[in-house]
Amino acid sequence: MTSDQLFQQITEKRSFLCVGLDTDLNKIPRKLLDNEFPIFEFNKQIIDATAEYTVAYKPNLAFYETVGAAGWISLEMTVNYIRKNYPDIFIIADAKRGDIGNTSGMYAKAFFEKMDFDAITLSPYMGSDSVTPFLSFKDKWAVILALTSNEGAKDFQFFSDKENKQLFEKVLTTTQQWGTVNNLMYVVGATKANMLTQVRALVPDHFLLIPGVGAQGGSLADVCKYGFNTKCGLLVNSSRAIIYADCTNDFAKVAREKAKEVQEEMSLLLTLHHII
Amino acid sequence: MTSDQLFQQITEKRSFLCVGLDTDLNKIPRKLLDNEFPIFEFNKQIIDATAEYTVAYKPNLAFYETVGAAGWISLEMTVNYIRKNYPDIFIIADAKRGDIGNTSGMYAKAFFEKMDFDAITLSPYMGSDSVTPFLSFKDKWAVILALTSNEGAKDFQFFSDKENKQLFEKVLTTTQQWGTVNNLMYVVGATKANMLTQVRALVPDHFLLIPGVGAQGGSLADVCKYGFNTKCGLLVNSSRAIIYADCTNDFAKVAREKAKEVQEEMSLLLTLHHII
Repeated sequence: MTSDQLFQQITEKRSFLCVGLDTDLNKIPRKLLDNEFPIFEFNKQIIDATAEYTVAYKPNLAFYETVGAAGWISLEMTVNYIRKNYPDIFIIADAKRGDIGNTSGMYAKAFFEKMDFDAITLSPYMGSDSVTPFLSFKDKWAVILALTSNEGAKDFQFFSDKENKQLFEKVLTTTQQWGTVNNLMYVVGATKANMLTQVRALVPDHFLLIPGVGAQGGSLADVCKYGFNTKCGLLVNSSRAIIYADCTNDFAKVAREKAKEVQEEMSLLLTLHHII
Repeated sequence: MTSDQLFQQITEKRSFLCVGLDTDLNKIPRKLLDNEFPIFEFNKQIIDATAEYTVAYKPNLAFYETVGAAGWISLEMTVNYIRKNYPDIFIIADAKRGDIGNTSGMYAKAFFEKMDFDAITLSPYMGSDSVTPFLSFKDKWAVILALTSNEGAKDFQFFSDKENKQLFEKVLTTTQQWGTVNNLMYVVGATKANMLTQVRALVPDHFLLIPGVGAQGGSLADVCKYGFNTKCGLLVNSSRAIIYADCTNDFAKVAREKAKEVQEEMSLLLTLHHII
């Protein structure tokens, strides 16, 4: 998918919502555990309920790996289900991989060929050859960690050089030379919405993936104020606040209502900022 | 496993060799492809052939993920096989994970509970809460990327502050406060053997996992000269130079000979440096 195609979907749905599929066997309705692949069954119902309001899904790999091979099968089934039924929706593997060149090439095959993800999140620590193998796949994306929303972000991401350039800024300026606005985006935490100004000064045209709106806090209006570009340029993720809004057998219905609420707020903000 | 137990194994085997199980379906003998789990079958034969000379095995997750759920099953079978037949051998998941706290907790369960790995490699970029969940498991280890052996290492790992402290040094000084010499080790690339002096000044007592000896070059004698501490303090990995030393049906026999050669060199170096 190109950047323009992603923006077209945003325009049509009046939404830039990414739903995080952090599917935890301990949090889904007990009734689903009767299925052979309960994680997939939960995802399927969440997807069918929310696809109208959603431009992207983001399975978090840890939640699948923690149940072993059955989790990996559920992940493959989930990607196939989205691809077959909602072919325009962008699918991000939240995997935070990153290794030497030939190993990154294997990861790229795993996520872009064996499975049909559109994008994968990557840690930048190992540098160029850990990222570039992902950029050689047509219409596929690398989503690089720049400024994350967790407590530990302060440990290294603000480490700064003689000119007070911080590591996350160095990551933004260096990595953007490896790709284009059509195959690179960045993770920027919403807990630091005003820092989006600093980020936008360095990457005005790239899409940003924003975690941390919803259960983890962070104001959507602020994120838009500081993060929008003329083609939206944002994918805002919400996981728990949507998928676990209700823990009864009505979970999908309530998830749909929550996704719709977020989409309506996004629609207003897109209008307010004259983007669509 | 504690640091002392690891050193005891090193003393008994007169070896600090880690064999990297980077098992690639395109590189293993064709005959093995008749098995339901050819990756496991290859690993099993490599393990049986080399265990006498090896203190650790390190499956690289990318090679398993790239074949999907069957790869994940092969990985689980490999860990179980080592644990059952060679219970003293240290098993490292070369996974380079790292995410926010609750997600890292899920990864820790995946690798330390669902599978019985002793250790996992982690990227430090997201800071403390991405690492500490792994340190709360008794006798399990986090192996943090400090200075890697790939070309891209120069992009960010040498980024330096006002006092010329480099990022990899900041990673070493900061992360060691989160754990102990019994649950933290570091990845340090062997292509920069003389830089081990700089690393040892900061982490004199921690074990270091050294990739890049063998097919990727790097002198074992130099690694020992600059990297040994009084309790060895090194695990030196070799993958391709051992497991793909021969690509015929004699692969296991030749892998054994190659592992024995490395072990003999290690034995000499341990004696030469008065470690055992």
